[in-house]
Amino acid sequence: MTDSPESGPVCPLSFGQYPNIVMAHGGGGRLMQQLLEHLIQPLFDNPWLAQRHDSAMLTVGQSRLAFTTDSYVVRPLFFPGGDIGKLAVCGTLNDLAMAGARPLFLSMGLVIEEGLPLVELKRVLESMSEAARRASVAVVTGDTKVVEKGKGDRLYISSAGIGIIEHPWNIMPASIRPGDAVILSGDIGRHGIAIISEREGLAFESTIESDCADVSCLVLALLAKGIEIHCLRDLTRGGLASALIEIATVAKLHIAIRETAIPVREDVQGACEILGFDPLYIANEGRFIAFVPAAQAECALAVLKADPLGCDACLIGEVTSTSAGVVALETAIGLSRVLDLLSGEQLPRIC
Amino acid sequence: MTDSPESGPVCPLSFGQYPNIVMAHGGGGRLMQQLLEHLIQPLFDNPWLAQRHDSAMLTVGQSRLAFTTDSYVVRPLFFPGGDIGKLAVCGTLNDLAMAGARPLFLSMGLVIEEGLPLVELKRVLESMSEAARRASVAVVTGDTKVVEKGKGDRLYISSAGIGIIEHPWNIMPASIRPGDAVILSGDIGRHGIAIISEREGLAFESTIESDCADVSCLVLALLAKGIEIHCLRDLTRGGLASALIEIATVAKLHIAIRETAIPVREDVQGACEILGFDPLYIANEGRFIAFVPAAQAECALAVLKADPLGCDACLIGEVTSTSAGVVALETAIGLSRVLDLLSGEQLPRIC
Repeated sequence: MTDSPESGPVCPLSFGQYPNIVMAHGGGGRLMQQLLEHLIQPLFDNPWLAQRHDSAMLTVGQSRLAFTTDSYVVRPLFFPGGDIGKLAVCGTLNDLAMAGARPLFLSMGLVIEEGLPLVELKRVLESMSEAARRASVAVVTGDTKVVEKGKGDRLYISSAGIGIIEHPWNIMPASIRPGDAVILSGDIGRHGIAIISEREGLAFESTIESDCADVSCLVLALLAKGIEIHCLRDLTRGGLASALIEIATVAKLHIAIRETAIPVREDVQGACEILGFDPLYIANEGRFIAFVPAAQAECALAVLKADPLGCDACLIGEVTSTSAGVVALETAIGLSRVLDLLSGEQLPRIC
Repeated sequence: MTDSPESGPVCPLSFGQYPNIVMAHGGGGRLMQQLLEHLIQPLFDNPWLAQRHDSAMLTVGQSRLAFTTDSYVVRPLFFPGGDIGKLAVCGTLNDLAMAGARPLFLSMGLVIEEGLPLVELKRVLESMSEAARRASVAVVTGDTKVVEKGKGDRLYISSAGIGIIEHPWNIMPASIRPGDAVILSGDIGRHGIAIISEREGLAFESTIESDCADVSCLVLALLAKGIEIHCLRDLTRGGLASALIEIATVAKLHIAIRETAIPVREDVQGACEILGFDPLYIANEGRFIAFVPAAQAECALAVLKADPLGCDACLIGEVTSTSAGVVALETAIGLSRVLDLLSGEQLPRIC
């Protein structure tokens, strides 16, 4: 039995050899895709879920809204460059931003393991409060649950967000067009490496800090400049490669990417080589790709580079129409390699 | 050191003798109140959170929206009368309904423990899908995370919901008025007893089924009939008593309740006596109280009784103005007892 989604109907209760949930079902790779396509999508079939987007885009009264949710199970709770609280707020703001929405309101749910020191909970909540304040959004509703020791892992956070869409575009995977420029907002791989280093006590020459950040300001700046954004995607679980593959698959278009154009810091590249990871698949928490008309690419890059968060923004490729649903990477030595979703999971619980 | 919230500033990092989170911090009683008042509210201070309501009431464009979130950690996942999926959908719909909102959209976040059989996940998702379909709401966005075996308890679900407020009232604790009738939508105590019976393998003469249900239809029927609802509250963690106490405290009014007017099924009463529980404090998942002008009480009761979900609705008391922030229960033998929040937790993880 093959596990390719193209190979016809697959029984939702036996994804290949997996009758039970395994870690990779949450890893952003092939197994997670199968769970979504064969179990979740059919049960909750509706036009919003079918958009396959970071946020659902809704019409309520006269307003276009974006609505998103995420659960955060990162281990450890505190890491260089952030913590689970900052991650939860920034991640939710970023999901709203990926619809081009201006974030307005957040909710927050805590699942706390019995025994968590109140001082640690306070640190996390302060961090959430600070991240929300910086973005001028309010945490307007919440919920707190406590589970017994051994039934959680210190703290899980779920958050949801509502944003308002004030631009005229349909920013979603299905909107990309042949000729679109693919812009990356900065260097990749830091969040995943920061987490694994902290978790495993690995010491590299320098401390690698997570890129965890709220990028909604960058997106709103692009829109304010009149950039006709076709699609946005933040590069979380599964990294740059998985984001590109999902967009190419939904849009049924070919995306060509140049490996040498993708910024990876030297220390991150070194850590990846030691750990056997490919930076293209490593999670980021403050990076995104934007698909824009080629004619506006220079302008978009200038807008991004004007903000410290986007100072390393660069053009990494374009949408072509030579074949359907494929991402081709031109490697440093000039070969072309088709990117594929990961089958397993290389870095569990990075967000 | 006293743990009364009225006794002046309390250091948020030493709630009495608790430097670490204990189960009761999630139990809906005094410790949870302290966590909210001393740690969470000050950090996220905003007018929406200050409403102390099941949903935040927001204005976006020309629309009034309700926004809510809940995390579900019920153990076991399946119980007589429902499961965690039905509970998550109904609980979120009910929180929206408590603002008098018509539910529109839901989100769903799954935190799955490695090893959960896919057939069980499917059963839960089918149950969610069915509950959402019955209420004509769509699950428009979601998230899936997997944690290692021993870092969860099979499945936790977080959900958020958006509803639209189409009535002119300010349904919230601060809106209750002296003279208001307090209406209870049905018998109490079944959800908590169903959970504890299933969890502990207790066999009573009959199987006690959870009251888990979406009550938004009842609320919308009251509004359609022109009832000027002042406040609504569903009777989840902490039960009827805790809901009344929180409303009386926020509104700084006195609520008088008659114990003999409160419907408790005989089998539930019997189970409570055996287990040493007070049904007033037991969680329900399909019951609510409504505060309405006395002149409209009869009409409101008639509306509720016309629906099988509200067939046992009854008038249980009224708001008076004789003293501030207190709930007084007139007992079966005619004595008056002031109700207080629970200090510990009697039934952990019932939702």
